[in-house]
This record gives sequence, structure tokens and C-alpha cells, in this order.
Amino acid sequence: VPVVDLNADLGESFGVWKLGDDDGMLRVVTSANIACGFHAGDPSTLRAACDGAVSNGVAIGAQVSYPDLAGFGRRFVDMDPRELRDAVLYQIGALDAFARAAGGRVSYVKPHGALYHAAATDERQARAVVEAAREYDPSLAVLGRGGSILLDAAVERGLASVAEAFADRAYLPDGSLAPRSDEGSVLVDTATVARRAVDIAVSGTVRATDGSTIRVEARSICVHGDTPGAVRLVESVRDALEASGVGVHAFVA
Amino acid sequence: VPVVDLNADLGESFGVWKLGDDDGMLRVVTSANIACGFHAGDPSTLRAACDGAVSNGVAIGAQVSYPDLAGFGRRFVDMDPRELRDAVLYQIGALDAFARAAGGRVSYVKPHGALYHAAATDERQARAVVEAAREYDPSLAVLGRGGSILLDAAVERGLASVAEAFADRAYLPDGSLAPRSDEGSVLVDTATVARRAVDIAVSGTVRATDGSTIRVEARSICVHGDTPGAVRLVESVRDALEASGVGVHAFVA
Amino acid sequence: VPVVDLNADLGESFGVWKLGDDDGMLRVVTSANIACGFHAGDPSTLRAACDGAVSNGVAIGAQVSYPDLAGFGRRFVDMDPRELRDAVLYQIGALDAFARAAGGRVSYVKPHGALYHAAATDERQARAVVEAAREYDPSLAVLGRGGSILLDAAVERGLASVAEAFADRAYLPDGSLAPRSDEGSVLVDTATVARRAVDIAVSGTVRATDGSTIRVEARSICVHGDTPGAVRLVESVRDALEASGVGVHAFVA
Amino acid sequence: VPVVDLNADLGESFGVWKLGDDDGMLRVVTSANIACGFHAGDPSTLRAACDGAVSNGVAIGAQVSYPDLAGFGRRFVDMDPRELRDAVLYQIGALDAFARAAGGRVSYVKPHGALYHAAATDERQARAVVEAAREYDPSLAVLGRGGSILLDAAVERGLASVAEAFADRAYLPDGSLAPRSDEGSVLVDTATVARRAVDIAVSGTVRATDGSTIRVEARSICVHGDTPGAVRLVESVRDALEASGVGVHAFVA
Repeated sequence: VPVVDLNADLGESFGVWKLGDDDGMLRVVTSANIACGFHAGDPSTLRAACDGAVSNGVAIGAQVSYPDLAGFGRRFVDMDPRELRDAVLYQIGALDAFARAAGGRVSYVKPHGALYHAAATDERQARAVVEAAREYDPSLAVLGRGGSILLDAAVERGLASVAEAFADRAYLPDGSLAPRSDEGSVLVDTATVARRAVDIAVSGTVRATDGSTIRVEARSICVHGDTPGAVRLVESVRDALEASGVGVHAFVA
Repeated sequence: VPVVDLNADLGESFGVWKLGDDDGMLRVVTSANIACGFHAGDPSTLRAACDGAVSNGVAIGAQVSYPDLAGFGRRFVDMDPRELRDAVLYQIGALDAFARAAGGRVSYVKPHGALYHAAATDERQARAVVEAAREYDPSLAVLGRGGSILLDAAVERGLASVAEAFADRAYLPDGSLAPRSDEGSVLVDTATVARRAVDIAVSGTVRATDGSTIRVEARSICVHGDTPGAVRLVESVRDALEASGVGVHAFVA
Repeated sequence: VPVVDLNADLGESFGVWKLGDDDGMLRVVTSANIACGFHAGDPSTLRAACDGAVSNGVAIGAQVSYPDLAGFGRRFVDMDPRELRDAVLYQIGALDAFARAAGGRVSYVKPHGALYHAAATDERQARAVVEAAREYDPSLAVLGRGGSILLDAAVERGLASVAEAFADRAYLPDGSLAPRSDEGSVLVDTATVARRAVDIAVSGTVRATDGSTIRVEARSICVHGDTPGAVRLVESVRDALEASGVGVHAFVA
Repeated sequence: VPVVDLNADLGESFGVWKLGDDDGMLRVVTSANIACGFHAGDPSTLRAACDGAVSNGVAIGAQVSYPDLAGFGRRFVDMDPRELRDAVLYQIGALDAFARAAGGRVSYVKPHGALYHAAATDERQARAVVEAAREYDPSLAVLGRGGSILLDAAVERGLASVAEAFADRAYLPDGSLAPRSDEGSVLVDTATVARRAVDIAVSGTVRATDGSTIRVEARSICVHGDTPGAVRLVESVRDALEASGVGVHAFVA
């Protein structure tokens, strides 16, 4: 039986500013990438997100970032790898305090924004993230793009690596994502997104922009909760997966 | 045999800015109140301080603060008690990640600066600090001023409370500290400070500003490492204690 | 002919987080209290707000705050008066750069959140705000609560003081605002709010919570733009004022 | 008569953390690059630095930076050029408030740290800095490395461009600086540094690492004040320049 995880970015409010529908998403996803305060997420937001994850049986991941509130972690910051490792370790520990207070624990790490991209292609940045995860707890998994340097680095250091795919993003024939700036690169039609999620989970394939079918291996599908109607879209994805006989379960126990 | 702990604030550098002689102090004190990033202490500074504490066999405490880098945590911030609790929990978790990476653990919590003073007298602020400590780990001790609301709150919630005294500060006859702005309120003569430390440890007393002898119960003596010559002064205090037959040991195992 | 100003807090987004409908409000109000980056407002948000204010002919005020992004400036921070003065001066200068780039200028100062309340009652905090304004430009006006220490301090230093009132808040018989926590303290009925605005502007009075009519002198009425329907409510207020023959004009030239 | 300016980075303390000897340097240099709060410099530090500059007759420049306190502005941050322009404008305005309160004004802009390097080679980053300066005041000069993209961009937009050289850094034969990591790349011998300063000012040349003499045109020489003995070294440089008949004057009126 095919099995897949649904992961989403949560805990991304900050103080008076609210972002996304955490409560709605926590009823649908199986893994929550919770912000750790560096790109978003004040301490009380972290608590609420962890409480919600635990009470919904959702796995908690540390969504670690460069220190960049003003840029929401989307700006590459050329940090020394040791300083980056320490910044990541700081974030994992801070979030885990709330996860444990809620009765759960951080079980994986996923870099956010510019760090997600840097760690996918830059070995030093990737190793810094992995090293922090390993130092904190060698049983932590690392969630990232399939085929990324980040997942290679995780394997190299003995950590579980988990590949994710995107049901709502257009793929180029070479397996990479079409740039967000390209027209049609973000899919919004519910039926289309749901069908692609099923294809990824059942056959490990997705239709590319040129109409060809390409392989996309993924134990997890990343979904987004920060747009109006996002929760409903994710519900449709989950319903379609289950209707196709796919088990929707977190990748961590 | 009388026993006393020597505690000092460490890890208070930030990025390029250095403060105090952590290495020197870690060779003398038995407990290190390590900053957690809110009033001082970038992640790499936390790592270095935790590594040094563990390798010197020094107990690690979380020196938690209001979020106030520009004011070094010396400005009272009127935080909602739940937000304060969450800010404290965040800091404990962040620091503990480095303590554990170094092979140790955070074993106590001590509020810093304006939070130290607020938690000594304001029940809501005191309870917020204690609640965060208890949530993180009920075996954490709370270090604070003898007779403070903070220590009462710790006892009330079942946490170990540890009273500290100051060998280098003048005490008023009522047992309170003379304000820093008073002339002579901070003692710098090595022999005087060392003798007062011995009095506190051996007889639980100190000479007050009016010449009277008052009771000052303390399991720990707070010393300071951020001035030139500070390390030498603390060494003299420790030597005098040991020469008087006082055991100098951390209050945590 | 009675004349009144309508002022609102604007520029309170931060990075990816959006707050309020600045464009909508700028079409209705006559004075914009623009955040300066300390409680809200990244630099690009300041630019957009200043550009919009100038193109709509709206006066620009510096909405200065304690440094407190996480608390949106609603937490009292016990800053040394000289440090507060300097923090306020920093904010005025920063905002004025955008006001001037847009072809306008900062013409008044209004403290935000906890600083608004502190400066209304604490002479040292009030004087710090006024001193910064005066240092920057003695032609700046100071906008605050009628009868506040802040306005007294402004007058004392030779700055124009401008009193504001609230059409959507309940007043106690002694002229103070009913606490937000009291039921009914924030009025939402459009007709009621509009009528109270007209009463304030035309007769300098408002109906208090006990039914009595009290005096509320105000050259400006503060309105709020951060709730759904806020812009429409303010439009109704403005329409009612103009229908009653009240001139709606900024208090600065 | 040859004329040269001596510029140094000042105002780089932050809260309790002190860096450099501003008072000492202000008695020797002719231009002060004052931090603006983004990599260093709390508001009260800006005030002190501006007061000191004005009372010593030293020109004030805005030392603008990426937002990066923890990294002291030495980390490249991949900011969108419009956001960078706005961040720079914010900083110029904030600093100018203190310059004007002191009776002076910001008369030039110099990027700091990673932004200095990025703006020297990246056209989009360079233009963002120049655009902010031009928007604030077209009479501002831009100070940077001779031959840099930054100075080209300043000229292109009609701003005065001022080239600087380094008397205490080793130059490669191609005119670029030897990397700091190279042994001998930072010169500390007083007589050597002073002689090189005179060579730069009098003949526009400097001895490169291979012994060859290369051209280094510079209207300003950058000196450093953040090491022990730095002030004395700079005094020696100034004495040597004056003894050689070089006028030591700011490049701005």
C-alpha cells in the first residue's frame, strides 16, 4: 500500500501579525514544519503550534531559518558554516522546549526559505544544518528536496533523509521546479493538484511542463496554508489520496 | 562542613562585541549563569560558554531575560505573564541544546537584570519564570535572592530554590542591598570581599552599612567577571573560602 | 465653522506580514500616524505609506514607539529618558527620509501604544518624546490625549500641542476612556460612531457611559483601520462630519 | 599641495558593548563613518558620535549596512535592490537626525562590511546604495574603493564620488587588496604604515607585495580605530602626512 506524508509550514505568525490558518491545517496535514523564531514565530506562537500539533497527532519538525524577520527568511545570508550550525541548533532547542511542554517532541528538521535553497545546493550550508540536527538528536530526520545536497549530507552523517515533492508546483522535464515567476508555475485548480498528489504517491511520477511524465520520488508532499482557500485545497488532496488507497501518515513514528 | 557555590554571569558577548573573561571565570566558579540570546549571547557564544562550563565541571544555568539586546536586559519590559513564560521557556530550550551538545545540561534558571528584580517582587512575573522552568524540567532549580517572591514561587511549584548573596555589595541593616548609586555600595577591596564571602558561608552573616551584623542565608555567592581584575578577585574569594574550610561546590549535583 | 482632523495609525505592516488597509484609509483620513520601524514598519512599508500620504494630501506624523516588534509596542519598556529621547529622534529621522523622498515631510509626532500611555502620565517619558521632536524640528506638532502630560510638556517646550478624541470608544463620566476590557468599550455601530464624531467636532462633547454629557475638546479624532470594515466606518464618519458642516482638515498646514 | 582625508569607522558600540576609541579617533581623523544601527550603533551611540564629530570639526558620513547586528554587517544578505535602497535611506535619515541635532549634517555615505564589498562589484547593490543617497540629498558624496562599481554608479547619478585607499593593508600587483587571511596582509608597523600613507597622498602610489610600485589614487585614506594602539598609529600617520607637506582635510566642505 502506498503511503505518503503531508507537510506544511506553520507557526509563522509573529506577535500581532497573523499568517496562515494553523488550526485548519493541523486537522489535515500529518507533519508540521513549525517556525522557530528566526524568520517568524514568537514564543507564544510556537507554543500554540506545538500544542495544536500534539493534540491533532501531527509530527513536529523544526523549520529552521537564517535570522531574518524582515525578509521572512527568504534572503540568503552568507553565514559562516559554524555560525549557521549554531543558529540552527539554537532554533531546534527552542522549539523542542514547546514540543515537549505539549507532550511531543521535534522529530525532524526542515530548512526554510533561502536556507532551504542554499542547503539544497551548497555543501557547507547543508552540512551545517545536518550537523546541528545530529548534535541535537541523531534520531532526527531531515526533510528536503529529493536529490538535494541536504539529503545527501543527512545520509552521510547517519540521519534519516526524507524527500518531499510539490503537488501544486509545475515541474520542468529535468525534474526541477518551474520558477515561481513563470506563468502557471503555481497550480491552483483543486482537481489538478489532487490528481498530481495521487500520481506522486501511487506511481512516483508527475506530468512535466512539456507533457512528459517524469519520476518524482517522495515520502512527503509539501502543501501550503497561507492563502485563502488553502485548507480546503489540502483537504481535497488528502481526500483524493485516501480515495485512491494511499495511506496518509507522517514519516516519523 | 560549610559548603557554598560561586555563580557568575557568563556568555554575555554578542557577535563581534566581547564582554567578560569567560575562560578565566570558568576556572574559578562552580555555577555559570549563561546568557540565552535575549539580553546577550549569540548562538556561537552560547556554545563556547557551555563547552567551557562542561570541560571545567561547572554547572550550567539559564540566565533568562526580557528580549532587550539594546538595553542588556536591564530595562523592565511589562510583558504579559503568559508571553513571559513562553519567552523564558524558549530561552531555556535554546541554551539546553548547547549544554547537551557539550555533554552537560541546564540544571537551573536564574533571571537576569530587570527580570531578576521584577521576579523578586512581582508574583506574576515570578510565577511566569517558575512555570517555564517547571514545564521544561521539574528537576531544574531556581536561583535568586534570598527571601524573594521568586524563590517562594519556586517552592510553591515544587522546584528547588537556591538563595544567593553578594560578597562585593554593601548590605543595609534591613538585609537589602545598598543601591548601586550609593557611594561604597560596590566593594572592590580583595581582602574585604573575601572576608565577607567567608562570613556568609561560615556563619550566614554579613556586616551591614551601619556596622551591625545581619543574617544572610545563602547556598550560593554571586561574583562578577566583567571588570578588569575580576577573575583575580574571584580567585581570592575562592582561596579564602577554601582556606577557611568551606567546601566550594555547585548546588546541583 | 468647526474643523476637525481625522488621524489613523498606518504603515504597520512588517515584511511579509500585512496589517490594515493603508490605501483605503489614506483616501479618507487627513493625518497619517506612520510607524517608524520600532513596533512595526519595515523601510519599504514606510516608503509606501509616505508615498501614499503625499499623493493623497494627507499629513505625515511619526508614530514613535518603544523598540518592541514582538509586542507591537504595547509593552511598557522602562527606558532611561535620555535613551528614549534618542530612540525617538532616531525614528523621526528615519521616517522623515521617506516623507521627504515622497515630496512631503514629517509634520508631527504621536507616540504609539505603551509609549502613548506612559507619555500621557509620566513626566520624564513625556519630556523625552517632546525633546526629541523639538531637537529634530521645533515646528513639529505633538499629537496626544487631551489633558495629557505629553501635551503639557509640548507646550512647555514651545511646540504645538494637538488634542485628540476617540469617536469609537466609550468615555467614563470623568472624561477618561473606559478600559478595553469593559463590555461595550469599543463602539462598532456606524451611526453611533458617526454621531459621536459630529458631537465632538461641533459641540466638543460626548455622551459618557452613565448617560451624562461631558466635554471632550479635540482638534483631531483618532480612527482605526486595522479591522474588517474599518475603512467603510471611517468613510461614514467623514461623510457625517461634512454633512454637519464640519470642515475635515489636517491640523498642520 | 597634496591633500588627503583620513576616514575611520566610528559609533560601532551597541548598548553595553563598547568598541573602539571614538573620542581618541575623532581628534585625529577628518571624516567619521558613523554606524547607523543596522550593524552597530544604538541611538545614544549615534548621538555621542555625532556630537563628537561636530565638536572636533570632523565630517559625518553614514556608514550604512545590511541589517545584521549578530554578524556586524559582515554577512552578505541577498536583499532585493528596492528593499536595500529603502534600508539605506532609513539609515541615512536616522543618522542625520543626530548629525543635525549636533549642529552638523550627514555629508557622505559609505557602505559597511559585506555591503561595501557587494556594492563594489554588484551593479544592482551599488545602484541601490547610490539611489538612496541621491533621494536623501543629491549633494551627498559616496565614499568607496577606487575603481569600484559603487563609485561608477555614483558618478552616473550625478553624485560626488570619493576614492579611498588603505595605508595599513598589503596591495597585490593588480591593485587589489591582499586577502586578510594572507600573512602580512595587515600592516602594523607604525613607520611603514605612515610612509605608505605619505606615498599614497603625495605620489598616488604604493609598494605592492611583489615589490613593484603601483598607482593608487585616493582622496581619502581609511584608518582603523578598533585595536589597541590604533589611535596612536593614526596619529603617527597624520603627523607624517603633515610633516611631508600634505594637507589633511575632509573631502567635504
